[in-house]
Amino acid sequence: MMKLVIALMLGLALGLPANAGTLTEQDLTTARELRERALECDGGFEIVADLTRRIGPRMAGTEADARAVEWAVELLQEIGFDRVWLEPVTFNTWHREFERVTVSAPGVAEQELVTLALGFTPATPAGGIEAELVMFDDLAALEAAAPEDVEGRVVFIRNRMERSRDGSGYGPAVQARSRGPQVASEKGALAMLIRSIGTSTNRFAHTGMTRFDTASRAIPAVAISNPDADQLERIFSLGGPVSVQVEVGAEYTEPYTSHNVIAEITGAESPEKIVALGAHLDSWDVGTGAIDDGAGIAIITEAARLILDLDERPRRSIQVIYFAAEEIGLLGGRAWAEKHHENFENYQLGAESDFGAGPVYEIAARVADEAWPVIEAIQRELEPLGIELGGREASGGPDFIPSLPYGLAVVDLKQDGTEYFDYHHTENDTLDKIDPEDLAQNAAAYAVLAWLAAQSPIDFGSGPQLIEELQ
Amino acid sequence: MMKLVIALMLGLALGLPANAGTLTEQDLTTARELRERALECDGGFEIVADLTRRIGPRMAGTEADARAVEWAVELLQEIGFDRVWLEPVTFNTWHREFERVTVSAPGVAEQELVTLALGFTPATPAGGIEAELVMFDDLAALEAAAPEDVEGRVVFIRNRMERSRDGSGYGPAVQARSRGPQVASEKGALAMLIRSIGTSTNRFAHTGMTRFDTASRAIPAVAISNPDADQLERIFSLGGPVSVQVEVGAEYTEPYTSHNVIAEITGAESPEKIVALGAHLDSWDVGTGAIDDGAGIAIITEAARLILDLDERPRRSIQVIYFAAEEIGLLGGRAWAEKHHENFENYQLGAESDFGAGPVYEIAARVADEAWPVIEAIQRELEPLGIELGGREASGGPDFIPSLPYGLAVVDLKQDGTEYFDYHHTENDTLDKIDPEDLAQNAAAYAVLAWLAAQSPIDFGSGPQLIEELQ
Repeated sequence: MMKLVIALMLGLALGLPANAGTLTEQDLTTARELRERALECDGGFEIVADLTRRIGPRMAGTEADARAVEWAVELLQEIGFDRVWLEPVTFNTWHREFERVTVSAPGVAEQELVTLALGFTPATPAGGIEAELVMFDDLAALEAAAPEDVEGRVVFIRNRMERSRDGSGYGPAVQARSRGPQVASEKGALAMLIRSIGTSTNRFAHTGMTRFDTASRAIPAVAISNPDADQLERIFSLGGPVSVQVEVGAEYTEPYTSHNVIAEITGAESPEKIVALGAHLDSWDVGTGAIDDGAGIAIITEAARLILDLDERPRRSIQVIYFAAEEIGLLGGRAWAEKHHENFENYQLGAESDFGAGPVYEIAARVADEAWPVIEAIQRELEPLGIELGGREASGGPDFIPSLPYGLAVVDLKQDGTEYFDYHHTENDTLDKIDPEDLAQNAAAYAVLAWLAAQSPIDFGSGPQLIEELQ
Repeated sequence: MMKLVIALMLGLALGLPANAGTLTEQDLTTARELRERALECDGGFEIVADLTRRIGPRMAGTEADARAVEWAVELLQEIGFDRVWLEPVTFNTWHREFERVTVSAPGVAEQELVTLALGFTPATPAGGIEAELVMFDDLAALEAAAPEDVEGRVVFIRNRMERSRDGSGYGPAVQARSRGPQVASEKGALAMLIRSIGTSTNRFAHTGMTRFDTASRAIPAVAISNPDADQLERIFSLGGPVSVQVEVGAEYTEPYTSHNVIAEITGAESPEKIVALGAHLDSWDVGTGAIDDGAGIAIITEAARLILDLDERPRRSIQVIYFAAEEIGLLGGRAWAEKHHENFENYQLGAESDFGAGPVYEIAARVADEAWPVIEAIQRELEPLGIELGGREASGGPDFIPSLPYGLAVVDLKQDGTEYFDYHHTENDTLDKIDPEDLAQNAAAYAVLAWLAAQSPIDFGSGPQLIEELQ
């Protein structure tokens, strides 16, 4: 506390805003060193290059998932974290075999579309499903449709995701994927096609999860690429009936136990207090999971590695958490919240990097009022990276969402996602889509955040009381 | 001839270069009208949109090939050409069933690569071929290799095509595809992988033809996408042995007869003399053949349609030729040369559009000396389209190459191909890759060329004597 008082006095004496004094000059100097060192290093890029090279796609519950966990433990031990351990996450999973969709119409030759079955979609009966295709503008139009216009048919929802820096086009569009098949099924549809929830104009289908209330409601559902969706619209514009044949091979698999992988830099003063940086280790079964989320793994690991390289240990502990099974329902994040939420008062923050490798442009934080000046002070050290101060709404990233109801304080380092949804959940998510300089900027931002959050004289306010405070 | 003299005198009187006088002011005025009208029309885009929508991929020898020929006859008759007819082209063809290539190495999980079998590649034995993979920088390195370093292995050539406006990176790189498998086979290789001959950084493999001297030399050969080739290089950089499993399903099919489709605007003064515009109707079996070569079909057809819309008929006839089976060996172009070469003295020129839909930037022509001033005059009318005067070397486009030994005069309207090899021979060759404005610029250029070549008072010099003249 004395340090804080002195720092505040120094701040005043120097004419700085009072809240800059919440961190010592030494802490700020170290933060600046970390920032500059991160920008000069390509250690992060080497991490994601090695992960994608050695493991490639690593869908939760596969052999590659297990190999990825082994790879992670080896990497984290080699880097020299003080502790590395596993926490089990058990789940049922799903395995894609194939998908084949062909379309035809009067005056239109039969053509195969580029497709990917959605995650956890059931297989079609042998020989597939052949039916008339009926097109809807969006989920609302399907919801408004009379069941007799849907029953016995295959539904196509054509809504297109809009491109934006913050990825805000995803939320409205993804409803067609997450809820569309259930709604179609309720009205008697035999199967479902959606325009991919993605912005690529290349011929890649974007997979992702869909959900059914009950197994008996489940119908085969596939995403088609944007060019194929355009093609379907042009075929519909001829005005005649459109026929489709849908074949999906897929199976549900036995319960599998994967692991959240956690590594810690043990704090020097308050080792029980924790700054938690997250990313997820699993990927979809297509692509090599470079931007989703090899990039996040690389960013948080490189940030922590730079802190490990310092001559001093941080006051609080810093943990990197490689979450398991994010893609199939935030399962690693849920398991982690369940296991740790009773200790959340010791967690300074959760911050997950899971939005590719575009540069960070803004910091937002869901923290107690008294901690906000520290966030403002951290932002000032992020400013040279082009990072502005955002607001007090934050989610912490997908795997920390299950922790929000328990009051975990969270920070978002918001990345430019303009191109993220060109690659997200596609075969085209490969290493070459990552710009090493942007990746280094991310590592710099996480290093500054982690260090200063660990050094902060003020706790960020995690715990049940945060829910009330911010309501 | 009197017209020419008057035109020359007018030209001199107006202070114009003498050769401008080889065409009448009325002809030049009409050319300008055609040019402006073409830029305002989207008729070309509608043609390629309809072809790709109704037929989609149309590999030579498939049912879709036959449907494309029907589509073409209907379109050309509907547009109102004076004559539309078919000329048979018979060939053996090949049918892709599937390809599957997986790679593994010590410390590297088994990963499937994005691949396409090369055209006319044989199937692997059931269960595929499993062997060590050996990497070469380029075809020359493979040629220099000792047979004992190749025998019993699978060869990978990693050479990368360079991007350029004129597509000149294609020729050197494509040797790995066209000759590589034969060379590998001679040294005892079991199968071959090549880095795709294409510039895309997206995960698309580029197919294309390969050739073997004898059927007994044939080995399975597949192209892998650029990101996958990068991945292979990274796996090789680990230094250990790399294993590959290659499975290809494919079959050779029975002789099939397709057709060159020809439509004519019959000339008013010299109907036996012909300006021949070409494009090819077939495509590869992946993609929808939008840029290769639906664009060319659209460009030449729209150019001719605009001329048909004039109040007057051209002096010479103008023919549009939709060549068959270009992709599998210029088979329509060969058949056409064989059938028509004895009449080449009546052919003013051949000019094929087969390089996508990028804008034309240059005109080059292989014509008799005395006709060159007409080419210069035509270029002046193309100048407002951004088209410069090139040289006197030209090929006329792939399907006119078999006609060159017979002395056909040819003109190249050279297109900007900077992006062409991002899509060429891939699943990603779809309508959205065509810019309607660029397509219209192409149609404008072909309309001006066809009209003025048809009106030219000077023959371009086709026939055996052209070979000698230009030697």
